[in-house]
Amino acid sequence: TLPGSDTLEGLSSTSGCNPSEWITLNVGGKVFTTTRGTLTRFDGDSMLARMFCKDKDIGWSSRVDGTGAYLIDRSPLYFEPILNYLRHGKLILDKNVNPEGVLEEAKFFGLTSLIETLEEIIDREQQPDDNTPIT
Amino acid sequence: TLPGSDTLEGLSSTSGCNPSEWITLNVGGKVFTTTRGTLTRFDGDSMLARMFCKDKDIGWSSRVDGTGAYLIDRSPLYFEPILNYLRHGKLILDKNVNPEGVLEEAKFFGLTSLIETLEEIIDREQQPDDNTPIT
Amino acid sequence: TLPGSDTLEGLSSTSGCNPSEWITLNVGGKVFTTTRGTLTRFDGDSMLARMFCKDKDIGWSSRVDGTGAYLIDRSPLYFEPILNYLRHGKLILDKNVNPEGVLEEAKFFGLTSLIETLEEIIDREQQPDDNTPIT
Amino acid sequence: TLPGSDTLEGLSSTSGCNPSEWITLNVGGKVFTTTRGTLTRFDGDSMLARMFCKDKDIGWSSRVDGTGAYLIDRSPLYFEPILNYLRHGKLILDKNVNPEGVLEEAKFFGLTSLIETLEEIIDREQQPDDNTPIT
Amino acid sequence: TLPGSDTLEGLSSTSGCNPSEWITLNVGGKVFTTTRGTLTRFDGDSMLARMFCKDKDIGWSSRVDGTGAYLIDRSPLYFEPILNYLRHGKLILDKNVNPEGVLEEAKFFGLTSLIETLEEIIDREQQPDDNTPIT
Repeated sequence: TLPGSDTLEGLSSTSGCNPSEWITLNVGGKVFTTTRGTLTRFDGDSMLARMFCKDKDIGWSSRVDGTGAYLIDRSPLYFEPILNYLRHGKLILDKNVNPEGVLEEAKFFGLTSLIETLEEIIDREQQPDDNTPIT
Repeated sequence: TLPGSDTLEGLSSTSGCNPSEWITLNVGGKVFTTTRGTLTRFDGDSMLARMFCKDKDIGWSSRVDGTGAYLIDRSPLYFEPILNYLRHGKLILDKNVNPEGVLEEAKFFGLTSLIETLEEIIDREQQPDDNTPIT
Repeated sequence: TLPGSDTLEGLSSTSGCNPSEWITLNVGGKVFTTTRGTLTRFDGDSMLARMFCKDKDIGWSSRVDGTGAYLIDRSPLYFEPILNYLRHGKLILDKNVNPEGVLEEAKFFGLTSLIETLEEIIDREQQPDDNTPIT
Repeated sequence: TLPGSDTLEGLSSTSGCNPSEWITLNVGGKVFTTTRGTLTRFDGDSMLARMFCKDKDIGWSSRVDGTGAYLIDRSPLYFEPILNYLRHGKLILDKNVNPEGVLEEAKFFGLTSLIETLEEIIDREQQPDDNTPIT
Repeated sequence: TLPGSDTLEGLSSTSGCNPSEWITLNVGGKVFTTTRGTLTRFDGDSMLARMFCKDKDIGWSSRVDGTGAYLIDRSPLYFEPILNYLRHGKLILDKNVNPEGVLEEAKFFGLTSLIETLEEIIDREQQPDDNTPIT
């Protein structure tokens, strides 16, 4: 009975797709706690949906760390708004967060609806402040 | 006697509504420490008030993690000002915090007074800088 | 001999007011390390001064967590500049910190000199940018 | 079998260059989790590529901490965008991050392509807003 | 053999000034990892240089926490750029960091070269935006 051993039991039940099951992720060194339902919501073909439900035996090439958390080699900073989007369906960015960072994560996880939203935000920001046509 | 086992005793006493009892929350992977009194203050019908006092046997569908902290599958970033509001009754947002993120949490937890305040803040921010009518 | 048990010994010596004794605080879930001397400096009648020296047997209604840290049900975000002020006597705020959040903590801990300083900062910020009288 | 001992096994296999092997870094006190493949990607002559693959017996003068994480005496704040760049090849900076801090890390780790990109960003920022020549 | 006991061995060898020895600091509750060489670099008469090399038996009045980290009762927020400066000799501040906070730490640790640089930065920031003389 090592510390953290009680979180390992979640691991043995990965054979199911129980949406209320608690999942711990280790994204680039930062721990996120969520449910299987959140990770597999929206975009049913996203990498997260496949990793944590559909093809979990094939697609899931990651490992777990010593506490039983699933290891994901991505940026925790830009994963935060991605996970929040999966919780309630809205993309919310703080003022100091670069949307290009979130776009890279949306692409990696194959969240097609988010990719479009983020590309629009980036386009809008890159337009010059003075955008009146020089007639 | 595992590490953290001393925080588990708080769990057994959830049958009461003792406001001075210490509660540990694991919100999306981040740990918050507060009291039952703070969580059940204001909006007596909020989800938090029901979860941590009234209907605790019915409404509380969450679980606890290995350290005895109550698991909540929400954003820790936007829960922070919510919990702070419950402590003293004032909504205080830092400049880089997006009020739309806090609004989603206020809606989730059913804090009706906060929802109105946040919607006003968002309305005000979305008004153009130059809002003088073009007479 | 559990992990963290070595920090518990600080607890037994709370009967004195030794300023060089190390104190660990758990403020809303975040750990702060400081000394008894820092917490009881300035405003001798502040709640912190009374909690950690004078009336420690009466005024100290808080508890300690599993690691021996004193539990305080307040915002760690806005406690940070308060603790820093107690270290050297200067109030220093980063640009994205809302002074109204720090004011609530200064009021809670009864730091009267800080309350005045913060109210002045808030007054100054709320003045419109264009404050020339329309003669 | 101490806590964290399971991460030590990664240590014994450092003799290979297995890109899918998980690596834990302790950069200035903050833990980052990534793979050997990410650390040795791009700039094959970078210090990271040599440390974690090529000359690992010679070039790797660092040590590991009690949990088996490789110790690196650098800024975690500015290492974050460096590691993110190694994951997908794009340099992404949040608005409040000083590019000069990231430049120092790029120089330290010998990431030549990043150094050029960062120097261009810094040059552009230092140009005055009004840069029209006074004819 | 408690968790963290392997970091305690660094403690016994504090009698030397080995620059490549790893040091763990607990600054106000946040852990920083660095080397003795970094802490004693530049300003040879700084408090850090004396604490971690020269007068270590006399000057070092601090203690170590349960994990063997040296306790320092200062702000971790403003210590971060100080430690980074000691690593490569450049002072780098993010946009939201108040230089007055870093100045207090530079003064405390007796880093005379940094004090001057920071005072210049603060002077420049306090100048009004429109500083053309009204002839």
